[in-house]
Amino acid sequence: MYLMRIGAPGAEKPVARLDDETYVDLSDLVTDFDEAFFDRGGLNRIDQVVAERAAAGRTSRFAGERIGAPIARPHQILCIGLNYRDHAAETDQAVPDEPILFTKSPNTLIGPNDDVRIPRGSTKPDWEVELGIVIGRRTSYLDSVEEARDVIAGYTVVNDVSERAFQMERGGQWTKGKSAETFNPAGPWLVTPDEIGDVLALDMWLDVNGVRRQTGSTKTMIFDPYFVVHHLSQFLVLEPGDLINTGTPPGVGMGFTPPIWLRPGDVMELGIAGLGTQRQNVVAPR
Amino acid sequence: MYLMRIGAPGAEKPVARLDDETYVDLSDLVTDFDEAFFDRGGLNRIDQVVAERAAAGRTSRFAGERIGAPIARPHQILCIGLNYRDHAAETDQAVPDEPILFTKSPNTLIGPNDDVRIPRGSTKPDWEVELGIVIGRRTSYLDSVEEARDVIAGYTVVNDVSERAFQMERGGQWTKGKSAETFNPAGPWLVTPDEIGDVLALDMWLDVNGVRRQTGSTKTMIFDPYFVVHHLSQFLVLEPGDLINTGTPPGVGMGFTPPIWLRPGDVMELGIAGLGTQRQNVVAPR
Repeated sequence: MYLMRIGAPGAEKPVARLDDETYVDLSDLVTDFDEAFFDRGGLNRIDQVVAERAAAGRTSRFAGERIGAPIARPHQILCIGLNYRDHAAETDQAVPDEPILFTKSPNTLIGPNDDVRIPRGSTKPDWEVELGIVIGRRTSYLDSVEEARDVIAGYTVVNDVSERAFQMERGGQWTKGKSAETFNPAGPWLVTPDEIGDVLALDMWLDVNGVRRQTGSTKTMIFDPYFVVHHLSQFLVLEPGDLINTGTPPGVGMGFTPPIWLRPGDVMELGIAGLGTQRQNVVAPR
Repeated sequence: MYLMRIGAPGAEKPVARLDDETYVDLSDLVTDFDEAFFDRGGLNRIDQVVAERAAAGRTSRFAGERIGAPIARPHQILCIGLNYRDHAAETDQAVPDEPILFTKSPNTLIGPNDDVRIPRGSTKPDWEVELGIVIGRRTSYLDSVEEARDVIAGYTVVNDVSERAFQMERGGQWTKGKSAETFNPAGPWLVTPDEIGDVLALDMWLDVNGVRRQTGSTKTMIFDPYFVVHHLSQFLVLEPGDLINTGTPPGVGMGFTPPIWLRPGDVMELGIAGLGTQRQNVVAPR
């Protein structure tokens, strides 16, 4: 399934995308793709419904609605740092021995094509295309990496927007540079694992103003999604609907000489094979 | 007001404490002390109700109910590191130039007297008595430190339980050592600012097995609560009901020579003047 939330911010309607033109409306059955939905086995419940409605022609046509993030605001957004070998190298940081965990405020979540706003006082705003994992059920102390497959609801594209001065020069922990409003575009879809051939071989890319800046593949991740979920479950409890940003491939702004920072008027376009594309206008601080 | 949530985990009832024996039940008016409650001006709405019910004798007597955290699971738990001069010194870390921000998973929140469970693989579990700030409304880019007074709903005691090996030796960011299940006892009360003489002169303490380990006062904070709230609002959006742990005074386990770590069977007792006391049994990993 390809799950989407369409409509105005805060009033998105949960739907299942069939193709670029059509969807199955699920708003009569599902309040939202939120913690309660995943916790109660919502994915299994709607699987049959979507098939039946599609077969019966009970479908709707997209009509240019805004696309929201494919999940409701999660309990937590966890992020893995320096998870691609080449990205660690370009930012002059050592390849980590185990996943580096940091977090973003959950209210950074926005739709895939919403504006990204530069925060006040920002001097080094930057981009990061990433594979996002959505957790399907409450998870703690997984016994094996293999078991992580069963707790992943699906995958989505995220742009882990970052302010490098806030991240690196304002107190030693990264959260300050990751949590500004609009800093986590996600979507357009939550894609269930059965729709994805091999999550460990997905091409990904990001353009700024039409110039290709990031090119990568999940093939070069240091810690793959199953390893990451298993690892995190040893330190904290993952809740249904939690989002994990799994790190970015080479080509972020801070990796260029001289570095390239986002400016108002810039356009970011990004995508991951099979997971759809995003497009954000960068706007000035409010 | 002194707000409390009493009853079984996940089924707590919101009440206003009048004294050690009596309370006003608010469960007919308030679903929970959560984001929606604070966002809709719930504190102002119940202020009059509590006074009227108390005057009319519409009160109940505590009957040994479990005490929950005084707020529902928040959107985020933000924490300030090294915010007491003496604590920075005892842990061999420099006094920071500005508040150090890190986070805990929101699902670490438990009641003030619930068990604290040592996580699997833990070798260095530690305690931290702290003043907790609860945010009263959506807050971004406060113009002045003074304005922070208007967005603070109240204060509570928190024990910012920490696993120092996970925090310091597992990847460079602190979140891993702060987010284990049961790692954030809070309460017993959410105390509104009008009930507190001077929040910048509150004595605080923590005992382990009856031995005084932490003694401090909010007098020696480096960045006071108003400074902290103003500062954070420049980097992220605070939501109503968000919890901020403001740092711990000297006397944590890692500050002793040799260090003292928590063990199953230990009892932590802690409190802050005017904000009540907590008592947790430390239990073995599950």
